[in-house]
Amino acid sequence: MIEKLGSAVTGFQEGQRVLVCAVTPCYRCEYCQRGFTSQCGGPLGGYKYTTQMDGNMAEFFVVPAAAANLTPIPDDVTDAQAVYCCDMLTTGFVGAEHTYLQLGETIAVFAQGPVGLCATMGANLLGAGQIIAVESRPERQALAKRFGADVIVDYTRGDSVEQIMDITGGVGVDGAVEAFGFPQTFEACLRVTKAGGRISNVGYHGENPAPLQIPLDAFGLGMNDKSIHTALCPGGSARMTRLLRLLQSGRIDPTPMTTHTFGFDEIEHAFALMTSKEDGIIKPLITF
Amino acid sequence: MIEKLGSAVTGFQEGQRVLVCAVTPCYRCEYCQRGFTSQCGGPLGGYKYTTQMDGNMAEFFVVPAAAANLTPIPDDVTDAQAVYCCDMLTTGFVGAEHTYLQLGETIAVFAQGPVGLCATMGANLLGAGQIIAVESRPERQALAKRFGADVIVDYTRGDSVEQIMDITGGVGVDGAVEAFGFPQTFEACLRVTKAGGRISNVGYHGENPAPLQIPLDAFGLGMNDKSIHTALCPGGSARMTRLLRLLQSGRIDPTPMTTHTFGFDEIEHAFALMTSKEDGIIKPLITF
Amino acid sequence: MIEKLGSAVTGFQEGQRVLVCAVTPCYRCEYCQRGFTSQCGGPLGGYKYTTQMDGNMAEFFVVPAAAANLTPIPDDVTDAQAVYCCDMLTTGFVGAEHTYLQLGETIAVFAQGPVGLCATMGANLLGAGQIIAVESRPERQALAKRFGADVIVDYTRGDSVEQIMDITGGVGVDGAVEAFGFPQTFEACLRVTKAGGRISNVGYHGENPAPLQIPLDAFGLGMNDKSIHTALCPGGSARMTRLLRLLQSGRIDPTPMTTHTFGFDEIEHAFALMTSKEDGIIKPLITF
Amino acid sequence: MIEKLGSAVTGFQEGQRVLVCAVTPCYRCEYCQRGFTSQCGGPLGGYKYTTQMDGNMAEFFVVPAAAANLTPIPDDVTDAQAVYCCDMLTTGFVGAEHTYLQLGETIAVFAQGPVGLCATMGANLLGAGQIIAVESRPERQALAKRFGADVIVDYTRGDSVEQIMDITGGVGVDGAVEAFGFPQTFEACLRVTKAGGRISNVGYHGENPAPLQIPLDAFGLGMNDKSIHTALCPGGSARMTRLLRLLQSGRIDPTPMTTHTFGFDEIEHAFALMTSKEDGIIKPLITF
Repeated sequence: MIEKLGSAVTGFQEGQRVLVCAVTPCYRCEYCQRGFTSQCGGPLGGYKYTTQMDGNMAEFFVVPAAAANLTPIPDDVTDAQAVYCCDMLTTGFVGAEHTYLQLGETIAVFAQGPVGLCATMGANLLGAGQIIAVESRPERQALAKRFGADVIVDYTRGDSVEQIMDITGGVGVDGAVEAFGFPQTFEACLRVTKAGGRISNVGYHGENPAPLQIPLDAFGLGMNDKSIHTALCPGGSARMTRLLRLLQSGRIDPTPMTTHTFGFDEIEHAFALMTSKEDGIIKPLITF
Repeated sequence: MIEKLGSAVTGFQEGQRVLVCAVTPCYRCEYCQRGFTSQCGGPLGGYKYTTQMDGNMAEFFVVPAAAANLTPIPDDVTDAQAVYCCDMLTTGFVGAEHTYLQLGETIAVFAQGPVGLCATMGANLLGAGQIIAVESRPERQALAKRFGADVIVDYTRGDSVEQIMDITGGVGVDGAVEAFGFPQTFEACLRVTKAGGRISNVGYHGENPAPLQIPLDAFGLGMNDKSIHTALCPGGSARMTRLLRLLQSGRIDPTPMTTHTFGFDEIEHAFALMTSKEDGIIKPLITF
Repeated sequence: MIEKLGSAVTGFQEGQRVLVCAVTPCYRCEYCQRGFTSQCGGPLGGYKYTTQMDGNMAEFFVVPAAAANLTPIPDDVTDAQAVYCCDMLTTGFVGAEHTYLQLGETIAVFAQGPVGLCATMGANLLGAGQIIAVESRPERQALAKRFGADVIVDYTRGDSVEQIMDITGGVGVDGAVEAFGFPQTFEACLRVTKAGGRISNVGYHGENPAPLQIPLDAFGLGMNDKSIHTALCPGGSARMTRLLRLLQSGRIDPTPMTTHTFGFDEIEHAFALMTSKEDGIIKPLITF
Repeated sequence: MIEKLGSAVTGFQEGQRVLVCAVTPCYRCEYCQRGFTSQCGGPLGGYKYTTQMDGNMAEFFVVPAAAANLTPIPDDVTDAQAVYCCDMLTTGFVGAEHTYLQLGETIAVFAQGPVGLCATMGANLLGAGQIIAVESRPERQALAKRFGADVIVDYTRGDSVEQIMDITGGVGVDGAVEAFGFPQTFEACLRVTKAGGRISNVGYHGENPAPLQIPLDAFGLGMNDKSIHTALCPGGSARMTRLLRLLQSGRIDPTPMTTHTFGFDEIEHAFALMTSKEDGIIKPLITF
């Protein structure tokens, strides 16, 4: 989703590298005006590529509301860095933002896939005082630590809820991020948060048709001041510009997640690896 | 919970009528300092009477953190009005507040028992543009209209979700209040809200041991920017003073909910009626 | 700013009455994406008519970003009501919204011209417990009471700050709205608010070239948790629709402010009256 | 303000090191209940030591509302680190918090004395994308860079407003912190912020009796969606615990600000140095 522009687009110089987020809101519908730009036109409607229009892997593709969705990439940010803004960083960061954390609070992040790793990075950027990352794979544990996790919980070595309660002295965390998309993980988020805690879901729950469940004890019978928040990959040039600024200033660098690099002709192999999660893959970079 | 004070309490005049909320936070523990005063000391911990200490129906009773929990009642507010601040108004109002409504937005309130009626009143106070109240009993429907509901949905005449979607032109509401404490009602709140909508739970889910369920379609697979909020009866003299001001200025009058009045010797009969919900009872007033 | 549409605009029926706010944001620039739509493209940039492009008093005029700025008017709202949404209501309401008032709090509104009257109406809609309106003209005092003011302070009968401090028992108000655009009024807002109070400016300070002044004592030497907020006439179809809903449901009716009605040929006389404020004018309605 | 406790205080172990913030709220008055704990009992009332009661430099001193104000210090945090929580860190951090910054936004911090340096550190902790620190002294410039500043503006080398506008491409910053307490600095904060920008004051304006001034152009004639926020050193054990967590996890270390160390018998010399700002002093540590 990074392109060099021809001269047809006004306001940009020829040859300027630009970035387009996976979500491309119109910014003018009622949903967008209310601020829910990822829900452009209706639920999940901002996700236009793939589901609503032809994809963005062709040489040329249409950018909806280009004035609001094309973002210039600063010269000192590489393509390999910038491409993370388009989905992983913005999604992981909103996961962290939706914990509404106060400086120094405690945050648990469930699963350290690319989105979870970015949520860990986001919680660190937002001033968490302790980040507990739940993950079993060693290479992802190592990245979580690099991106700001203070403690790793390996769920293959004991119940993750119990481990988090132990780490927090039985109190629980202020906020929990669900970055896995699984009913048990969602439930665990409710179980590890204090009264008044915030559960932030960025996991995609489309694989499993069963409803999510809220255990009544962990929900204070509906009265313990917990809140649950959801989000979809926030887009738009203003946000993209802010994420690029974090890359440009060196505050973050997501490229350690790029475990593999493929040419465009190997793209099917790359997709297959992402499905099988073999070979320790976290994210592949496709070059043109 | 309304008393005339003897002279032993400083800062109050002898004979001053005072009010104590059902929730009496200490205001000093970590939960209180974070602002979750109803969770004083831990989940639901602000609810001290009945569960943690002797009740408040004796001639004399202890008020925890009295400096923060005793609230003087203005002369022009009657006992019969003021007593509603102690639980129904503050609970119903936080139900409305947790919809985080913008001026003119649409709100659905599920169930018009005393808390639901107060949530309707609260949504009206906060500037809702359209309030849809779900209720089947005619006397409660009438009160809902009196307190600000624009439309009544009777669930005995058709599915309430379908009716609300029809009323809103298929779009749904901006916020929904669960004031019933029932899994189906909770689920309905998710179903009737737009993407970006807020679900506010004030129903007590302690009667039914099954977990609450979140249908994935109404939850946008965890990604439609909906949020779910919970609360327990906010207390404290600052809030009570503000609620009393709303009574004093004539902006609200909850006494139409007082369908029955009993002497103190009839209190067991009153409790029985509240359990059976017979005789069209909404709220009984016990006089001393 | 109310028109009947021809068939050229998609998404609207021919003959549909529509409304356009005085502020018409593009919704796509960086300012709009950040949510400051009245600052579209730069400071005060959303105010496009008159200052940036030909006015809107011709038979036909261009509506920028029409998809986001044209708002259908419900059949049961009259032109004479709807026209108030375009400036007075949205400006006055944001004045009230920027006091960030909690249910039952106390609010002072300085000056009861059309914007101040709408701020009074807005504070009432948002659940203020006591509204103190500062105004000397009897006809405006009467309207303020009608729109929700509890107490009137006449500054010709004594210092308005002292009067408000007296009314609030020496404590001051939680929020104050500056709806006059005058240095002394702005300063008075700082003086009448409690520590932690919010000052909301909607007055236009363009007539007086001197800087506004913040008295240090009323500002707690820069440390008393007061905040000062400013705004310009929020536009957009989502907000306009919400304001229209408040009219439609009968919650508000601004037409008592319409003291005069003129035909289009008398428009210059109407403007002259608005300047001189003679004949008890509050707002004139120009009919076509 | 760090003590080892004797056995008289419940809930703490004998020998436990504890910390008390400079501000010690009661947590129960109306101001505290509203959340403005630094304004306990009235404007600036949380600042009890020195102004309301005997100081805290004696061997024994009273801690108001000790249950809410005594904070245990973790074993792995040194006294020299912990003492910064009591004033500098909490004040500087609220300065950053009151810019209400979004991830990646731009922040200017005026003056890099101890509070300004902590505001720089706070803006960095909260995810600023670019921090511009205004300071002329080389040793403070160096610390600012160490604590997260990206760019230093030296006001002895040109107008600081012009320099900041240049750095930001003429656009200005999203938020500005006034950490100096001077009318020109306050005005500069208004001048360097974009429309919609937030000005956060933590400077003490008690030295200069003249009112602060708001230039009308930089204030958009009262209509450019800027806001101004103020604060006083937030206290309380919940916040102190969160700040200590940031020290404990190694995310911050304020001790490079400790340029001098004195014994208790040299305390008058230390105060004199703080007044004269000689010898490159930033903060002295007094040991017992």
